[in-house]
Amino acid sequence: MARANEHYLKLKAGYLFPEIGRRVRAFAGANPSAKVIRLGIGDVTRPLPPAVLKAFHDAVSELGDEKTFMGYGPEQGYDFLIDTLIEKSYAPLGVRLSPGEIFISDGSKCDTANILDIFALDNKVAIGDPVYPVYNDTNVMIGRSGPADERGHYRGIVYMPCTEANGFFPAFPKEPVDIIYLCFPNNPTGAVATRQQLKGWVDYALAHDAVIFFDAAYEAFITESGYPRSIYEIEGARKCAIEFRSFSKTAGFTGVRCALTVVPEGVTARTPDGEAVPLNRLWNRRQTTKFNGVSYPVQKAAAAVYSEEGWRQTKETIDFYMENARVIREGLKSAGLAVYGGVNAPYIWLKTPGGLSSWDFFDKLLTECHVVGTPGSGFGPSGEGFFRLSAFGSRDHVSEAVGRIRKNLR
Amino acid sequence: MARANEHYLKLKAGYLFPEIGRRVRAFAGANPSAKVIRLGIGDVTRPLPPAVLKAFHDAVSELGDEKTFMGYGPEQGYDFLIDTLIEKSYAPLGVRLSPGEIFISDGSKCDTANILDIFALDNKVAIGDPVYPVYNDTNVMIGRSGPADERGHYRGIVYMPCTEANGFFPAFPKEPVDIIYLCFPNNPTGAVATRQQLKGWVDYALAHDAVIFFDAAYEAFITESGYPRSIYEIEGARKCAIEFRSFSKTAGFTGVRCALTVVPEGVTARTPDGEAVPLNRLWNRRQTTKFNGVSYPVQKAAAAVYSEEGWRQTKETIDFYMENARVIREGLKSAGLAVYGGVNAPYIWLKTPGGLSSWDFFDKLLTECHVVGTPGSGFGPSGEGFFRLSAFGSRDHVSEAVGRIRKNLR
Repeated sequence: MARANEHYLKLKAGYLFPEIGRRVRAFAGANPSAKVIRLGIGDVTRPLPPAVLKAFHDAVSELGDEKTFMGYGPEQGYDFLIDTLIEKSYAPLGVRLSPGEIFISDGSKCDTANILDIFALDNKVAIGDPVYPVYNDTNVMIGRSGPADERGHYRGIVYMPCTEANGFFPAFPKEPVDIIYLCFPNNPTGAVATRQQLKGWVDYALAHDAVIFFDAAYEAFITESGYPRSIYEIEGARKCAIEFRSFSKTAGFTGVRCALTVVPEGVTARTPDGEAVPLNRLWNRRQTTKFNGVSYPVQKAAAAVYSEEGWRQTKETIDFYMENARVIREGLKSAGLAVYGGVNAPYIWLKTPGGLSSWDFFDKLLTECHVVGTPGSGFGPSGEGFFRLSAFGSRDHVSEAVGRIRKNLR
Repeated sequence: MARANEHYLKLKAGYLFPEIGRRVRAFAGANPSAKVIRLGIGDVTRPLPPAVLKAFHDAVSELGDEKTFMGYGPEQGYDFLIDTLIEKSYAPLGVRLSPGEIFISDGSKCDTANILDIFALDNKVAIGDPVYPVYNDTNVMIGRSGPADERGHYRGIVYMPCTEANGFFPAFPKEPVDIIYLCFPNNPTGAVATRQQLKGWVDYALAHDAVIFFDAAYEAFITESGYPRSIYEIEGARKCAIEFRSFSKTAGFTGVRCALTVVPEGVTARTPDGEAVPLNRLWNRRQTTKFNGVSYPVQKAAAAVYSEEGWRQTKETIDFYMENARVIREGLKSAGLAVYGGVNAPYIWLKTPGGLSSWDFFDKLLTECHVVGTPGSGFGPSGEGFFRLSAFGSRDHVSEAVGRIRKNLR
C-alpha cells in the first residue's frame, strides 16, 4: 500500500502567491473595468536586453543545423557560462572561484529547495522571519519540522525575527543551529547586510561548524558602495557558505530560467562517524543524478548578460527599476508612511498605516486603489503589519500606483 | 554541526555515463587520430525540425519586446502546451486527460527523481534490473535502502530481473511492494510491453494499492501497431499510475529540456491514519514550491512539435533513427550476435560474444573498433553480459560502426 509523504499535510495554506492570485482574480472578475496595477509577486516587466536576445537567437539557430546541434550538456552547466561568471561577476569582487565550484541551474527557487537533499534530516535549521516562504516550506515538506503553531511557526525550526527594532537583521539564535539561511539584499524587507554584519555570521558558522545558505538573488540591485555582493568577500566564507545567485531579477530571466549555486570545495558537513564530507562532491552527485542541465540557448543568453554590451544594457534596466524604487519609496514616505528598503533592493517594505493587518491592507489597496502588493505576514508572523511593494513595472504604472495610494491615505 | 546526507555515500561508483566519458576521454587522449563513434549515451544528433525552430525563435523575439514580454509562467506549464498534449498526443490514443493532470517540466530525469518527494520513506520500491540508473540511485540517495551487495543490489529495494528467459519483462515480485517502476519501450533492453502485459501490472497495482511509475520517454519510437503508448490506454491505470513523457528523444530536446508528468486525479496514497490523499495535490504543491516552470520559449518550441508541420518533420527524424536501428540490428544479427530491441525503441540490446563481461566488451569495442556503447552491467547486475547500442547518430557513423564491429568479430 503506497504511503504519502504526510509532512506535506502540515503546510498551512496554499503558497503565498497563488493565494494573492486567487484574490486578484476574484476582484478583477467582479470589477472588470478596474485597472489593476500589480506590484505584488515581484516579477520583472522589461524586455531582455538586445545583446542577450541576439545570443539567445544565435544559439537557437545552432540547434537547427546538424553541424552545430547541441544535445545533452554537462549537468553542471557549460564552461563558457561558468568561466564568464568567474571572470566577470566574481573576480571583480576579489573572489576567486574554480569552475568545479559553480553549478548552473534553472532557478534559485529550485536550488534553495534542492540543496536540502544533501543534508541529513536531523540538522537544526535557522530561518529569518519574515522570509522567502520557500525556505520554510521546503523544510516542512521534507519532514524537518513538527506542526505549525497558531502564528505559523513550525516546531523544530528556529526562526530569527527581523524587525524594525533590529534593523531587519537577524540576531544569533540562542540555541545551536546547523544550517542558517541568509538573504541579502533581503526579500522581502529590502535590507542589505554590511561587511561587518556578514562577518559576524561567517564567524558564527565557523565556530559552530554550521553551513550558511546565502541567497544573493538581488545582489545586482545594490547601488551604494561598500556592501558585499557575495558572501565570499568575507574571509572564511569559503569554508562555511553556499551561495545562490540568479539571472531572474538581474537580467529579466524570470520566464527564461537560469541561476547558479556556488559550493566551494572547502565547505563540509559531517557523517554520523564524524567524517567531514565535501558538500561540493554531494551536490555534484545530486545534480548529475537528478538534473539534466539548463537549456543550451538559455545558457548562451545568460553568458551574454556579462558581455560588455549586454552588461551595459542590463545595468540600464536595473537602474530603471531602482528609479521606480525611489519613486515608490519617496512617494510613500512623503505620504507619512514608514518605509524601508528600496535603496539596495527592488523591494519596498512599508509599515501598514493605522495598525492594519497585512492582509487587511492588501484588501484595502486592492479594492480601493486597485494596486496589488504582498502582505508582509505572508512571509512569516514577524512580517505582520508590514507590506511589500516591488519596483518592477513600467514607470507609468509605478507612478500611478503611488499616486492612488497617496490619494487614498490622505 | 552540520550533518551530511550519509546515504549518498552508499552509492558505489560514479553515475554510469560519467564513467563512460572518463574512459572515452582517456582513450581519445592517448589515441588522438582514432575516429571514435559514439553510440553510447543515447543522445540525439539530428537538428530541431524547422517548424519547432521557428516557434522557438518567435518566442525568443517576444521576450525582446515589452508588449509581449513573458515573466514567471505557471509552475505547472502553460495551457497552450498542456492543451496541445491533451488534444494531439493523448486524445488520439483514446485517453482523456484534464489540464490539471499534466505538469510540464525540464526533464524526465528530474521528474522520475523528484516524484519520490511526495511519498513516505517507508514505501517498498520495485525496480527492473537492468534499468535506467536514476530510478535506483535516487532511492538510495533519499535513504530508502541499505548498503549495496557485491552485485550492486541495495538492501531494501526489490529488483525484478528482466532477462532473455522472461523476454525482458518483469515478473510480479514475491513480496508486496508499494511503488513499481516500469519503462516501456524499455531503456536499456528495447523491449516493448503489450496491452495484456501492462494490464497485468495495472491489475496488480490496483489489487495491492500500489502506484506505478510509468516511464514512457520512448513511446514515439513504437513502430509496430497494437502496443500501448500510454499506460492510460489500460483500464484502471488512472487510479494507480503516474506517467512520465519527454520531448528529449521524441523531438531532439536533450539540450533544450522539456518533459511532462501526468498525475491523474484518481491516484492516491495513504497517510499513517489510512486517509487516501490525491497525489495530484501533493505533486502540485511540490512543483509550485520547489520549481519555477520551464523556459517560455522552450514550451513554445515543444508545442510546435505537435503542429501538423512540426509533427511531420519530427516523425521524419524518428523514422531516420529507426532506420539506423534496423541497420544496427540486422548488421549485428548477420554477424552472429544475439540482438534484441531496435524495433519499437531506439536501443539495441545485444548479448556480448564469447561470454565477455559488459565492461570488457566496452573496452574491446572502444580500443579495437573505436565505437562507444554502454555496458549492460551499468544498468544493473542482470545486464551483465549485455551491451546497449543507441540508434542516434548519422547514417554514415552508424553504418561505419556496424561495419567495424562486424569486421572485428569475424
